[in-house]
Amino acid sequence: MITREQFASAQQQARDYLLRAGIVITPEEAASIEVADFGLNELDSTGLELVVYVNTDRVCAKELVLFPRQTCPEHYHPPVAGEPGKEETFRCRWGEVYLYVPGEATPDPRARPPRGREQTYNVWHEILLRPGEQYTLMPNTPHWFQAGDEGAVVSEFSTRSRDESDIFTDPQIQRAPRVAE
Amino acid sequence: MITREQFASAQQQARDYLLRAGIVITPEEAASIEVADFGLNELDSTGLELVVYVNTDRVCAKELVLFPRQTCPEHYHPPVAGEPGKEETFRCRWGEVYLYVPGEATPDPRARPPRGREQTYNVWHEILLRPGEQYTLMPNTPHWFQAGDEGAVVSEFSTRSRDESDIFTDPQIQRAPRVAE
Repeated sequence: MITREQFASAQQQARDYLLRAGIVITPEEAASIEVADFGLNELDSTGLELVVYVNTDRVCAKELVLFPRQTCPEHYHPPVAGEPGKEETFRCRWGEVYLYVPGEATPDPRARPPRGREQTYNVWHEILLRPGEQYTLMPNTPHWFQAGDEGAVVSEFSTRSRDESDIFTDPQIQRAPRVAE
Repeated sequence: MITREQFASAQQQARDYLLRAGIVITPEEAASIEVADFGLNELDSTGLELVVYVNTDRVCAKELVLFPRQTCPEHYHPPVAGEPGKEETFRCRWGEVYLYVPGEATPDPRARPPRGREQTYNVWHEILLRPGEQYTLMPNTPHWFQAGDEGAVVSEFSTRSRDESDIFTDPQIQRAPRVAE
């Protein structure tokens, strides 16, 4: 759980990153930026800020903001209610992102897992995404990603997003965000 | 059919608009920008320039560029191969777009249909989209759109795109682009 102050500060930072990336959002979107700490209360190292543009039964589009070296922890998207799991494309808009997927482990990877949680990071094939570069992940594919030293803004194009169904490697993670009253 | 020179010039203009909108594309994407004149050879009035980021069985994402007052003509997306038709969200990134959908006709609409083709424009409920504003269209919904005097850049998030299945009101339209040899 994060405090109201942490939440407000993260929202403001995310707005600043979107501005830097030249991405215009409405005042309503700015006020509803999601701050995900994955229940760990280590937002600087494990976390993600999101603007959800649309999420219908079939299509979802979001902007993701990652602060410098912030990590979206390892997870995958299983089938839900008889439908194949979520398929997603990450397109880097600003900054640099290191995405990890199954495959041959990359020697000297650019990302470092959050301290103390190294055992919950198992896929190590690195995809480097710079502005304009993208990668498509099919359902059931374990993945995690971390921003470089400047942070990053990433567009996500996907099928319906059902965050509550994601399966994380780290058993301490709770995806649903909670902010202290 | 458009000439090679028209095609090259439209691609270059589209690149300039994307740059102005702060959208980074790769050299490969820049070289493969689609120029659609809908078979009418009136690209300035009826046309669209597209960068297709991804188009899988389930998800599609594109950037659309419209030159000043350029119009994407009226059409809808029917069911294909037993699947519901294409669902799409248009999000304005730069400039101004006038989108028309079924509903009460808007008095004094901002757009003017391409000259001589007025009879092929039947839906007149206007949605004004400025940067950061968006609208979601469900399948089978007739729609058309036109950029304002400065042109526009619009992101499209959708289910699979099958342009060849689109149904246009204007019987003279051919969606598949053809460039003279």
